[in-house]
Amino acid sequence: MNNYASVPVGVLGASGYVGRELLALLARHPGASVAFATAESGAGQTLDGHTLIRAEDAPLGAAEIVLSCLPHGVSGRYVHEVRAAGKRAVDLSADFRLSPEAVYGLTEFTRPQVAAAELVANPGCYPTAALVALVPLAQRGLIDPSREIVIDAASGVTGAGRSPKRELLFGEVSEDYRAYAVGNTHRHLAELKASLAREGGFAGDLVFTPHLLPVKRGILETIHVPLTRTLDQATAEGLYEAAYAGEACIQITRGTTPSLQHVVYRNRVALGVVPVENVRRPRLTVIAAIDNLVKGAAGQAVQNMNVMLGLPETAGLAC
Amino acid sequence: MNNYASVPVGVLGASGYVGRELLALLARHPGASVAFATAESGAGQTLDGHTLIRAEDAPLGAAEIVLSCLPHGVSGRYVHEVRAAGKRAVDLSADFRLSPEAVYGLTEFTRPQVAAAELVANPGCYPTAALVALVPLAQRGLIDPSREIVIDAASGVTGAGRSPKRELLFGEVSEDYRAYAVGNTHRHLAELKASLAREGGFAGDLVFTPHLLPVKRGILETIHVPLTRTLDQATAEGLYEAAYAGEACIQITRGTTPSLQHVVYRNRVALGVVPVENVRRPRLTVIAAIDNLVKGAAGQAVQNMNVMLGLPETAGLAC
Amino acid sequence: MNNYASVPVGVLGASGYVGRELLALLARHPGASVAFATAESGAGQTLDGHTLIRAEDAPLGAAEIVLSCLPHGVSGRYVHEVRAAGKRAVDLSADFRLSPEAVYGLTEFTRPQVAAAELVANPGCYPTAALVALVPLAQRGLIDPSREIVIDAASGVTGAGRSPKRELLFGEVSEDYRAYAVGNTHRHLAELKASLAREGGFAGDLVFTPHLLPVKRGILETIHVPLTRTLDQATAEGLYEAAYAGEACIQITRGTTPSLQHVVYRNRVALGVVPVENVRRPRLTVIAAIDNLVKGAAGQAVQNMNVMLGLPETAGLAC
Amino acid sequence: MNNYASVPVGVLGASGYVGRELLALLARHPGASVAFATAESGAGQTLDGHTLIRAEDAPLGAAEIVLSCLPHGVSGRYVHEVRAAGKRAVDLSADFRLSPEAVYGLTEFTRPQVAAAELVANPGCYPTAALVALVPLAQRGLIDPSREIVIDAASGVTGAGRSPKRELLFGEVSEDYRAYAVGNTHRHLAELKASLAREGGFAGDLVFTPHLLPVKRGILETIHVPLTRTLDQATAEGLYEAAYAGEACIQITRGTTPSLQHVVYRNRVALGVVPVENVRRPRLTVIAAIDNLVKGAAGQAVQNMNVMLGLPETAGLAC
Repeated sequence: MNNYASVPVGVLGASGYVGRELLALLARHPGASVAFATAESGAGQTLDGHTLIRAEDAPLGAAEIVLSCLPHGVSGRYVHEVRAAGKRAVDLSADFRLSPEAVYGLTEFTRPQVAAAELVANPGCYPTAALVALVPLAQRGLIDPSREIVIDAASGVTGAGRSPKRELLFGEVSEDYRAYAVGNTHRHLAELKASLAREGGFAGDLVFTPHLLPVKRGILETIHVPLTRTLDQATAEGLYEAAYAGEACIQITRGTTPSLQHVVYRNRVALGVVPVENVRRPRLTVIAAIDNLVKGAAGQAVQNMNVMLGLPETAGLAC
Repeated sequence: MNNYASVPVGVLGASGYVGRELLALLARHPGASVAFATAESGAGQTLDGHTLIRAEDAPLGAAEIVLSCLPHGVSGRYVHEVRAAGKRAVDLSADFRLSPEAVYGLTEFTRPQVAAAELVANPGCYPTAALVALVPLAQRGLIDPSREIVIDAASGVTGAGRSPKRELLFGEVSEDYRAYAVGNTHRHLAELKASLAREGGFAGDLVFTPHLLPVKRGILETIHVPLTRTLDQATAEGLYEAAYAGEACIQITRGTTPSLQHVVYRNRVALGVVPVENVRRPRLTVIAAIDNLVKGAAGQAVQNMNVMLGLPETAGLAC
Repeated sequence: MNNYASVPVGVLGASGYVGRELLALLARHPGASVAFATAESGAGQTLDGHTLIRAEDAPLGAAEIVLSCLPHGVSGRYVHEVRAAGKRAVDLSADFRLSPEAVYGLTEFTRPQVAAAELVANPGCYPTAALVALVPLAQRGLIDPSREIVIDAASGVTGAGRSPKRELLFGEVSEDYRAYAVGNTHRHLAELKASLAREGGFAGDLVFTPHLLPVKRGILETIHVPLTRTLDQATAEGLYEAAYAGEACIQITRGTTPSLQHVVYRNRVALGVVPVENVRRPRLTVIAAIDNLVKGAAGQAVQNMNVMLGLPETAGLAC
Repeated sequence: MNNYASVPVGVLGASGYVGRELLALLARHPGASVAFATAESGAGQTLDGHTLIRAEDAPLGAAEIVLSCLPHGVSGRYVHEVRAAGKRAVDLSADFRLSPEAVYGLTEFTRPQVAAAELVANPGCYPTAALVALVPLAQRGLIDPSREIVIDAASGVTGAGRSPKRELLFGEVSEDYRAYAVGNTHRHLAELKASLAREGGFAGDLVFTPHLLPVKRGILETIHVPLTRTLDQATAEGLYEAAYAGEACIQITRGTTPSLQHVVYRNRVALGVVPVENVRRPRLTVIAAIDNLVKGAAGQAVQNMNVMLGLPETAGLAC
């Protein structure tokens, strides 16, 4: 059912939520096949038809490209081995996101660099949604740097990983909701600020507060943007539609704002915008939704891989 | 097990989520009993041992005080009848919250006026949590009026009522999360601003954005406060502890921030505070949690009733 | 990406949970396209890129085959019109499941008849899982007819439809679990007994009790089978594997039993079997899991459509 | 607010779900106070106002009675120390449920023995509901011993404890449902059979299959009873009402069957019965619901303690 040969892809760290999502996406991919899949503790087990092996036993030569879902801190070392073996790589950890060694792979912003890259750092889930929401405003000088951007983000539990921890038990999470990393201390803040400066030229302050939702997957970010001038709703929507014209993985929800339903199981950022009433100075509220496992991780990694390999950008992906 | 006589209490609108919570609280109350309970559509049915009657058939003379959980717009009319019959009332709808006819019953702020009131307007769920969080800062002149206060609030579905609506079906709400009244258009905003001006003397701008959580009960508000001067965490916590010393229904969660678990089924506002790092100007994040059905509605109504009747303020309530 | 022409498919009743699932499946189908999609109340709205029209306005001539997700009682009338227009049809309602007008389309049991059929009655969700579990045992005379088969089935809420009803509100369903149609009164019982007699020659008694789960999708059936002789686990598993050799949509979970996780979003029945210890007479417990919206409804309809059209049986389906 | 002195109660194993529920119940108990509370790993932490200590440091002399929520296998040893110190005890583990050392404390069946007991074995959650459902039928010779009783039970996750395990993570449990101990291998089966023989004289076979529900608390058991003669619904309901006349903690839901909503946060077993149609031989389906943490554990322990101490049986309990 396709007319291009199947590219062998190696997967490091396949047993977590992101790794499993990646295997599932690759299983439906018309132009890629899994060359090997590794798991630290689950070696020997079978997942989606693949026998998991240990990362140190990975036959790097068998893959044309390697995608790493290993944990932060661990991934970097293995990816260096992949590169030493002469293979291209997409790293889904945070290890290269602020590093000049890698291209930052928010595909819609860095498509040409991704196409040529040997190593792509796949963005974090929270920054992906926030950057898609903020960069068009920043590029046009619409964000008032004298007032802080405030972002409240809420994520499903798969964003917190699959290791057994008491605070992630169903008996603790169900019927609960909580903030974490309160006070602007989340790791993604630096990634977000650096990218917003680079892509949008914005150097003002942000306050980022993540929350844990009792859902399995999905992130909703409520982004409060102080504006330099008033934007009515149609103008704001038109601005985003122009900025993302032709982008298959970005959806503007005209006249409404998106919820998790709009994005789960899809490689999509959905955006809705509403000007703020009842305040003295101009403001825009942007609601951005994303599936943390898809456009926030495994799906965007496949999107980047497709660009690197010259395949259709959304091959294997539902946007 | 108690040494004061039982006060007969009338309940208008007992079949919704708030009304049912109120009946459940009154069933455990050592100094009150239900004189009658009404329900528009469920008349004739039995709830918690009480046969529901129609509101127009309510024997007002049989009650010493009447609590109304009728819908906004409907409640006002019935409460006027209650008053005309010479009975004191607590109205849980929005109908009197901005009216000089009633005392605004956020008990901790208006206790003496509530004690003497003939008619108490029970505050909204969102404003209760927000005011407990903001008034101490406002009273001390700590909120910078040149930058907006941003409040993102997330509520369980019982806050949206028990009428059958498609968007409240389990199949729609589960695994979803969404913002509503985006753009500062929620009814509670006016109540919140008026109360914050009256109790705290604050006249700056607020941006209030509510969200619907896939949980049954509980509200968490993430409140972003621009400060006029830096507050470290111990100072901020100490400020709140001083402001609420002796208050049984307000809890400061030192060194952490509260989640819904801390408050559900309790007549409590829980507060945690964290100074914001990585920004140029001083900011404080306050996390406020409340059970929308208890301290956000039926519980606070009982608290107000207790004060009006001279009963122990937390009789029948778990704080 | 495919080498066969796209077949135009008409969809009646596209706005409920099954209809929406069907549109989503057809959107990914390599050999089918949506000719029209109808909805009673949502006419004029857009769903998955299709403008919904009223059923009476459906251009039947534009479709090669019509799939009806209309409600029981309503569907039959429209399907007769489809047939009168000379078009083949798959009816997902219960209207033809016990009728000689239609082929009963549990694909794995009636594949040749489905291929030749003008009208296929798509099976109910509960019977599909139960029949896949019971027919192999019945065909081999292994079920003791002197003792009743007991089936306890638990379904996610999408099985109960998308019409607003109080008992389906999130506030009612979350954290709850209940049985319904207790006492063997569910509509699916007759369908199940008739099919089990026809396919397996079994004429004994069944007790079927459905339950409502606080999940969106998925059915798990715990099927208690009295046996005529003892079966050890390996023998029982081998028996099922032989019965379903080569069937892509039926999975035997050797050494364990399936949960909803194994089947959601897949067109699959998963089965696990365990002999019962600590009883005097031989018994087997069969656990059968299915996604009520996929193999239990829209997915099996596509599977039947594929067979009718001579397409690959699982085209457009993840099994 | 009460006229009897407060009895000092020791709690062993206070940090799990059952122990925490027990502390919460004792906090509201008008005639009991917590003398000490222990926790293996959380020693030094504060829970509900009590500083947790290590079990080996428990000042047994300070308590009049000790309630142990320690794990199976561990509890027995500590309870022997309690007894050696001359203190009465209620053991919530399985360690004494089949032992002649203890009185089996299903209060409604063994009230006089509990009153006089030095050591009470608190029943398991599943057996409590099943025994309340089955004993009245067994005592009257209404259960056909030639056909098996089939019990499918579904429990919320707090029944599985608070230790971090991957299969109990929110990401695994939410939207899932699964059977476990399939094949009649659950520990509670022996307890159930022994008690049903002792209290009801029944010696036939049972098939018991537990399931894990995506809810926090509550058990629903669907109990399929083969009868020796036909019972219509009114007769069956009357039989249960007579059997449990005057019992505050047992509720017969006439004309319907209970769901978890009927029992959570209450010390209650709720029962509903429906005769089975469409079968050749008489059968009754009994639906029994219970809160696993209350009447299934901590609540029944308090009920037993009350009986042992001569307090009102439901003091501190909502039934």
